[in-house]
Amino acid sequence: MTLPLDFDRLWSTIDRSAAIGTGRPGGLCRPTLSDADREMRDQFVHWCREAGCTITIDRVGNIFARRAGVDDARPPVVMGSHLDTTLNGGRYDGILGVLAGLEILRTLHDHDVRTDAPLEVVSWTNEEGTRFAPPMLGAGAFAGVYDVDWVHARTDDDGVRFGEALARIGYAGEAPVGGRALDAYFELHIEQGPELDAAGIDVGIVTRGYTVRGGIFEARGETAHTGPCPMDERRNTLVGASMLAVKVNDIGWAHHGTRGKSTVSRIVAWPNRPGILSDWAQITCDVRHEDRDTALGMWAEVQAAVPACARDARVEIALVDQWSFGDERFDEGCLDLLRQAARGLGVPAREMASQAGHDAYHLATVAPTALIFAPCLGGITHNHREEIDRTRAEASVRVLLGAVLARANRPLSER
Amino acid sequence: MTLPLDFDRLWSTIDRSAAIGTGRPGGLCRPTLSDADREMRDQFVHWCREAGCTITIDRVGNIFARRAGVDDARPPVVMGSHLDTTLNGGRYDGILGVLAGLEILRTLHDHDVRTDAPLEVVSWTNEEGTRFAPPMLGAGAFAGVYDVDWVHARTDDDGVRFGEALARIGYAGEAPVGGRALDAYFELHIEQGPELDAAGIDVGIVTRGYTVRGGIFEARGETAHTGPCPMDERRNTLVGASMLAVKVNDIGWAHHGTRGKSTVSRIVAWPNRPGILSDWAQITCDVRHEDRDTALGMWAEVQAAVPACARDARVEIALVDQWSFGDERFDEGCLDLLRQAARGLGVPAREMASQAGHDAYHLATVAPTALIFAPCLGGITHNHREEIDRTRAEASVRVLLGAVLARANRPLSER
Repeated sequence: MTLPLDFDRLWSTIDRSAAIGTGRPGGLCRPTLSDADREMRDQFVHWCREAGCTITIDRVGNIFARRAGVDDARPPVVMGSHLDTTLNGGRYDGILGVLAGLEILRTLHDHDVRTDAPLEVVSWTNEEGTRFAPPMLGAGAFAGVYDVDWVHARTDDDGVRFGEALARIGYAGEAPVGGRALDAYFELHIEQGPELDAAGIDVGIVTRGYTVRGGIFEARGETAHTGPCPMDERRNTLVGASMLAVKVNDIGWAHHGTRGKSTVSRIVAWPNRPGILSDWAQITCDVRHEDRDTALGMWAEVQAAVPACARDARVEIALVDQWSFGDERFDEGCLDLLRQAARGLGVPAREMASQAGHDAYHLATVAPTALIFAPCLGGITHNHREEIDRTRAEASVRVLLGAVLARANRPLSER
Repeated sequence: MTLPLDFDRLWSTIDRSAAIGTGRPGGLCRPTLSDADREMRDQFVHWCREAGCTITIDRVGNIFARRAGVDDARPPVVMGSHLDTTLNGGRYDGILGVLAGLEILRTLHDHDVRTDAPLEVVSWTNEEGTRFAPPMLGAGAFAGVYDVDWVHARTDDDGVRFGEALARIGYAGEAPVGGRALDAYFELHIEQGPELDAAGIDVGIVTRGYTVRGGIFEARGETAHTGPCPMDERRNTLVGASMLAVKVNDIGWAHHGTRGKSTVSRIVAWPNRPGILSDWAQITCDVRHEDRDTALGMWAEVQAAVPACARDARVEIALVDQWSFGDERFDEGCLDLLRQAARGLGVPAREMASQAGHDAYHLATVAPTALIFAPCLGGITHNHREEIDRTRAEASVRVLLGAVLARANRPLSER
């Protein structure tokens, strides 16, 4: 079965999204549970209802738009990604996957085509983790990794609880979080790396993720005057945090030859003011590598760097939070459907690993899951200059459609 | 002339101050132009009026309490310091100097003693610079270093203008800022260093300051995803700022043998969030040395460290603001009065340099000025554990009184 997708409609839908929560020209500032997030959610729900879908919102604000199947008792085939952005995000990151799923449901609606299994499009809450840590929070809750009460208790930098913020924007749904079978989950996302663009290949079939280990290190020292306190009596946490930040960066460079990465994304301190040494600081960092053992080794190197930084800055440094993702492998059955769809369309596809975290990682633990990449120009993302070649990206949407229809209509013998 | 100071009253006055803007137990959080600052100002003005003083408030909120002299046309002899604190300040830093001045005026009032020249006690606005940069702002404006409109335009981290904040707390006075003659300015302050405490000496006569050079370095890079972006394409300003922070700290250590210091007191970045590289960061830092040339050399070392940090982090780093203080020498005539007062009281005094910045530095450029230190325990300050031995501190208040009376009553032939 093939269907003519209306790409003009898809791109105008994406352009409408790009006008909600505008940041720098070309970019979006639509952090989770902000007013802009609410406006985008309202718009998405409106579009889904226009396309004949029923809407379900669960207790962490994940939105599911459902198109009934011929056999509506079957578990749904689900497409999706996220609609939230960082503070300087692009118009495609996450958004392409959700709105391409919407376009597929719209197309089925237009042509009055019904799949055997029901289809759903989901927008996961707080993929970016910009406002509330950790990232991929809604998908993680759906997969049972995070308890709903724990999710509700997350706070942002202003001390606002996730649960309050969710209720404020009117998206504290009543549906249970997870706990139901999905037939499969397919996520389309921009690559967020330069590979497909550089190779001139339009479709990435993501077989697995880079292994990621990250965490928050907390330094504790003592306030003092920035003047008279002698160097050997100072316990300035900003110095300890900076030392560790430099070491973390060095570790990424040491593994650059095999495409390893390390990142310090955040430093906070208190009082962090002129005239006074800071007695508290945190740095948020992670390491990533395609080879799991190497990633684990890099994370061990980060932790091994801590004692010297603590000693040299005369502070205590402890790992107070940590996370891991990217160890999952995607489902061979779903990957085969992507391969077949690409072949059927005559579209060259590259098998690759994802370097960024995605909602699909959590979903892979509870449902057969696969991830598809569309190229993005120069690999630039989390930046207002994020851009795609829309004509090239259309191939990935067609592959998504092909795989989803094949999965939803597969005969009983293959289930 | 000697007068019996009421130290019980002084210490209870300081205890009352210590209840306004309480932070951690033992400490104060009374940043400039906050509600706590207003409450303290109101209390101070009330006390001064009770002691028969007239109050003048200038356009940057400096408060002058005046006791008329026999010859009230003479320029006043002024005592003072500041009543604002850092976010984790002690109960004596600045406060001792203002409230010891008040105690002297109260004592004169009680005994109906009038000096030939008028006396004033001043509380300078924003000595700490915790909320509005730069520190010593009110005193600097009085000395003509900062234009009043420029002071009013300073903003805090929330974008609130100094002028607005001053009006909000009701201390936007109408008196011109500076532009009038002072006969002399005497500031009593806790040492904020360990020297007097360690030596068992109760009075420090400060002849000069450590030379201080400081500034804000700004890094500019580019946002990107913390995952796929290769190490050699990253332009993470947090890495550049951290590298520079480590270098600045190293420079202080290199001069530790001659009691040099360097400090990184503040790092800010944007977006400074998980998942995204920061494209903007600032670090606030300074260097201090007793030897002016060495201090200048240290500051040159800081600036020389910038290009390598910028190159290694692939960011631009520029010095966007800088300041200098501590080059001033205090007035020999005023210092002699302190020496004579100490001798007359039989109190051993140590001549020394100040390592912290003080309002007196700015005053020294427009009036004969001297600075007196009282010991503080272990040199601990800008910390809720700041403490003094009150009995030992009384000597410095007596020396202040002696010098002020001598100056205000000196015969025409010595003026």
